[in-house]
Formats: sequence, C-alpha cells, structure tokens
Amino acid sequence: MQIRAAVLEEFGKPLVVQDVELAGPGPGEVLVRLEACGVCHTDLYTASGADPSGYAPTVLGHEGAGVVEAIGEGVASVAPGDHVVTLFSPQCGECVHCVSPKTNLCLAIREQQNKGFLPDGTTRLSRGGETMRHFMGTSTFAEATVMPEIALAKVSPEAPLEAAALFACGLTTGLGAAMYTAKVEAGSFCVVFGAGMVGLGAVVGCRLQGAERIVCVDMSDDRLQLAKQHGATDLMRGGPEATDAILEMTGGFGADHTFECTGLVGVMRQAVESARMGWGLCTVCGVAGKGETLDIVPRFLITGRRVCGSSFGGAKGRENVPQLVQRYLDGDIDAEAFISHRLSLDDVNHGFELMERQDGIRSVIGF
Amino acid sequence: MQIRAAVLEEFGKPLVVQDVELAGPGPGEVLVRLEACGVCHTDLYTASGADPSGYAPTVLGHEGAGVVEAIGEGVASVAPGDHVVTLFSPQCGECVHCVSPKTNLCLAIREQQNKGFLPDGTTRLSRGGETMRHFMGTSTFAEATVMPEIALAKVSPEAPLEAAALFACGLTTGLGAAMYTAKVEAGSFCVVFGAGMVGLGAVVGCRLQGAERIVCVDMSDDRLQLAKQHGATDLMRGGPEATDAILEMTGGFGADHTFECTGLVGVMRQAVESARMGWGLCTVCGVAGKGETLDIVPRFLITGRRVCGSSFGGAKGRENVPQLVQRYLDGDIDAEAFISHRLSLDDVNHGFELMERQDGIRSVIGF
Repeated sequence: MQIRAAVLEEFGKPLVVQDVELAGPGPGEVLVRLEACGVCHTDLYTASGADPSGYAPTVLGHEGAGVVEAIGEGVASVAPGDHVVTLFSPQCGECVHCVSPKTNLCLAIREQQNKGFLPDGTTRLSRGGETMRHFMGTSTFAEATVMPEIALAKVSPEAPLEAAALFACGLTTGLGAAMYTAKVEAGSFCVVFGAGMVGLGAVVGCRLQGAERIVCVDMSDDRLQLAKQHGATDLMRGGPEATDAILEMTGGFGADHTFECTGLVGVMRQAVESARMGWGLCTVCGVAGKGETLDIVPRFLITGRRVCGSSFGGAKGRENVPQLVQRYLDGDIDAEAFISHRLSLDDVNHGFELMERQDGIRSVIGF
Repeated sequence: MQIRAAVLEEFGKPLVVQDVELAGPGPGEVLVRLEACGVCHTDLYTASGADPSGYAPTVLGHEGAGVVEAIGEGVASVAPGDHVVTLFSPQCGECVHCVSPKTNLCLAIREQQNKGFLPDGTTRLSRGGETMRHFMGTSTFAEATVMPEIALAKVSPEAPLEAAALFACGLTTGLGAAMYTAKVEAGSFCVVFGAGMVGLGAVVGCRLQGAERIVCVDMSDDRLQLAKQHGATDLMRGGPEATDAILEMTGGFGADHTFECTGLVGVMRQAVESARMGWGLCTVCGVAGKGETLDIVPRFLITGRRVCGSSFGGAKGRENVPQLVQRYLDGDIDAEAFISHRLSLDDVNHGFELMERQDGIRSVIGF
C-alpha cells in the first residue's frame, strides 16, 4: 500500500513528507493505521545527526497510537479494530529480561530493531523499488506502519488515541521512572529536575505513588506552573544553587528520590548530590550528549546515595501501558493537558522547531 | 589512668608511642582494655595528612577488640568482663537512621565524633594536663580506651580477640557490602575488584550469600591465590582489559554484582561498566582520593546498571558484628587467615610500612 510518511533524507535537513510503499504484515506482524503520533526529542536527535547509530533514509516517529488494520500469520493477541500504542521497547514475555521483574529491556528483537529491520531482518518500507529501513521499530510519522505483535500494547478503545500516543514514550518514561524504576514510597520527599514531558510525567508518577513533597525544578515559569497543576507541591528555579536549596528544605539530608529529566550531565550531578544521605535514590531519565559523563564524588555514594537509570520508565510495555492508559481514563493522569500543539504530518518540521525553542510540552501529529 | 598509646603528633611523621592519661568512663561510656587492634588504611590516610578533616595530636586506631573493664553510669548492655568489638560506626538504635532498615549510618553522635570528642563534647584523653582529641570515636592504638556504649558490639567470649578485631572495620566492610548493602542473591555472578582486606571480605560475603561465580580481580598473584582460598571461583589480573574480559565471561551482559574495593576511580568506572545490563549493581566500598570523581557514561545507567556505596558494609554494628563473629566461630569465615603480621604497639609504624608496600593483608597489634 502507498502511505504518506515523513522521511529523514539527510541529517540536519528538514524531513520530507512523501509517498512511500508499505508492504503487508508478515508472520507475527501487525499493520497499524496511525491516528496520532507525538513529536519527541529522540526523533529530533536522530534527525540532527547527533546520534552516532542513526541512519538515513528512514521514516522517523515512535510515539504513536492507532488502530489495527490487519494481522499477519500467527498473531493472536491483537485483532483488526483494536486500539494500540506503539512500543519502541517491546515485551516478548519470554526472554531472560522479560521473565525477570528487574528490567523492562526486552532482548527478543533488539539487534534487528537497532539496525532498522523487523525481527526477520527485512523491512516493509520502500520507495521506487528500493527498500528503506524502519526507525526504533516503529516509524510512526506515517499514515500506517507494520510492527511486530510484541511491540504493540492493546489499550482501552475508550481512550482518545491522541492522548494515548503520549504513553508510547515521553509520558510513560516519566511516570514509570517514579512508579516502576524508583518505586517511590508513600510519604517520600521527591525532586524532579526538568518539567518537560518526561519531568512532568515523573511529577505525576510521584503523586500517584503518594509522595508527600514533590519539588519541581526548571528554568521556565510556565512549565513550573504546569508542574504545579499536575501535582508538584514546590516549584524551584533551576540553577547552581538548587542543590543547596533542596538540602536546606530537607534539614541538610537531601531528598528520598530525585529524578533527572533534562539530559544535562551538570543537572544529573545536582540530582545525585540532592539525594538523601543514607538512602536517597537518583533516577536518571534524560539522555546525555555523546561523550559526556556524569561525574560523581564517591563520598556521596559511600554515605548512602544510590544512582540508577530508567529507560521507558522501566515499564514492561504490553503489561504496563494499558494500565497507565486506564489510569488516564480513571482521571488520575491528565494526559490531554500535555498536548500543547496539534499538527498535520506536513507540519512535522514545525513540530521540531517548537521543540527546539521549548514552546509547549508536546506536539501531536494527527492523521 | 596512664596508658601506652600511639599518638599522631604531626602529619606525615611516624606515630609516637608514649604514655597518655585516660580518664574513667562518664555516663553512657565504657572503659575497654584492648587486646588487639588491626592497622587499617584510614589510620594511614589520616596520619599522612591527606584527609582534610584530620587533626593532631590524637591517638589513632579504630579496628579494636578488647574486654570491658569498667562501665559508666546508666550503661546496661555491657558489663565488666564482656568481650567487645569497637565500632567507629555506632548504632544507637533510636535515631531516624537506626530505625530504618535502609541505612547503618547512625546519626546519634556523628557530629561530636567527627570533631574528636565523646558525645558530651569532651575528651577522656590528655597528657601533661592538656586534653587530646579521640580519633573516629575509637582511638584503639592504645592499651585502653573510653567509648560510648552505643559504639561497642558485644561478641562471643569464645572468639579470639585478635581475629574479632578484624570485624571492627575491614572484614565487616567487605562482608557487609555483599551481605547487607548489595544483598547478593544466590546463584549470582559477582566480580570483586581488589583483594585487600575489604575485597577479600567481599569475596567471602558473596560466597556466604550463595553466589555461583565470584571473579576476583587484582594485580597481585599472591592476593588472588588468597582470594581463591576464601571462595573466589575465578581469578583475573587487573588492568584496562578487565571489563572486556568480564563481558566476555557473561555473554556480553556483565555481572549481576560488582564490588569496588580499591578506592581507585578508574577501577570504580570498570566496576560500573562490568555490571550487567538490566540490573547489575556496582557497590563502591573503596575510598577515593580527595577531589577525584567517578565518571559514568549515563548510557550505562539508562540501560539498567545501578551504582551505590557501602560504608562499614552497611552493617548495623551492634546487631550485625556479633552475628558475623558467630559465623567466624561456626567456621564460615576464616578470619585468622587474613592476619599476616602480628606486631607490638611499639611497631605500629612498621605496620604502616607493611601496608604501604602491600605486604600481607592485615597487621594486628597485640596488647
């Protein structure tokens, strides 16, 4: 079938929206008609050429939601008409990581996915007879996509797909960091560095876990106000003095939980040093620039601070994303509030511009 | 009373063994007649002047064991004749840290202890009418010491005090890192970097926890052989290629647990990068040089590695040290094997020399 898609032709150049060919689903694969797709930093990061593992041409996009249109041989867990959220982080349910409660990093199709292929090592995308690789196993800046069954989370058909799309990446990354990775305890003192999509998700996650104090740190007053609407109890302007301010708020001890949601290694260091002596856990969600390191004075570790990272919020996608979408339907998570701009696919590059100037939280493309 | 003690008179100079005055125990304090005291790196670190919080003059020593000689008012948990291990890391049982299972960093007397005083802000040490400060709340390079009741662990009188002394610092630091901080799971793949007293303790701790593989990494073949006697299943020469070698041994994944027991930040980084994708935990036990940082590529965190530190092995001293000493008596821990040299107090500086040239594992001073 022919579909409209936003293709990364050349690093550093605008995406080119065009017709491409999408082949039907093979065994274990599913054809999804996309309804919505968020524009996320990882798309921009790859488009810029900064990601050393990036490649072109490819159809970008990974924060998608849509409706199953057709299924390949052997697909049993979804059926045409089902509403699904796309998972760049799949859940096969059988690999050594999927059967462990300790991690969500499914190993089943990792290698082929990273190379731009579906699990069988081929691609369903092409144009003019030449094959084109997939991106993050999703390629959802397009009217339709073919994805492995294990990379689709079936969600309630009651959830508007525009909001459901946010659970495909940014929102779940933040929510899950608090809920699944850090497992914030009720009554905790939490600090979230950064009030973008991931940071705001972490604020909500801390609230859902019953945190007593949620300090949100950001440079933008608008974002901080948004954080307050979603559950932040205290707002703080970012800057070098943030660590001292947090220590002062906590009797010199530091926070039970800190979340780093900016990707800046200097802020990561603040998040480590703001964590509580004895048991404070710093959860790193942001993706740092290539070659950058988080520098830790070991004394902070010896005196009880701990550091971990979170990928896709530690969520096991097929299991947890439907649960999170249900909490959105139950009114626990105000997902719509994060959608600041609604765009058509033709405006995808405008979505990148909005992101670069930090205008709003999330642009969502509607199909 | 007059006692012989090794006094740090001046940084960078040999300790001076001499007579000093020790006052009797005040309320909540205990007079301990020392039988044995290990010579530990922290003593040398302070003696060298490298520790910015160090002071002189003071009586060094903190790895002591002895017999209670007298108790002050209100002391109820130990009585004259009891065998005790000294705790630089006390356990009051009542502070917010003591009542938490998450940390062993008792807060009760921290401030005064760091300044060189007993909890009431005074000192029991003096000479020629001038007061002298205590060191680490212990000052056990001496025939006797006065310490707070909460800083003494009552151990089985069957345990030879020479071996029991090792549980006052180095051995417990290593054992506890595996048992209490990392809580190594049975069947784990563990790597211990460094085969000094702490690293060997970690090897034993991993063994007691039921680890399946225990790789010990060190530059010295003699130490590696000792590690093998204590439970290491694999021995590896230290060096830049150690990380790759561990990844190769683990199918590219890394170790479930790594322990850093050298204090070298470059080795700490190896310990982080050798930890397993998905859930590997790097436990830092070594104390780094002033101003040095552990530099972590955040990608290692995002893909599931975690980093923590361990002070005194996470042991709650009054509770755990007697248990560990019992395991020594039960034959689970061959503590005597770590005693490489037996010295008199007059030879304390020789103990430092042996440590500086990495001759043997532990020198123990007998009184």
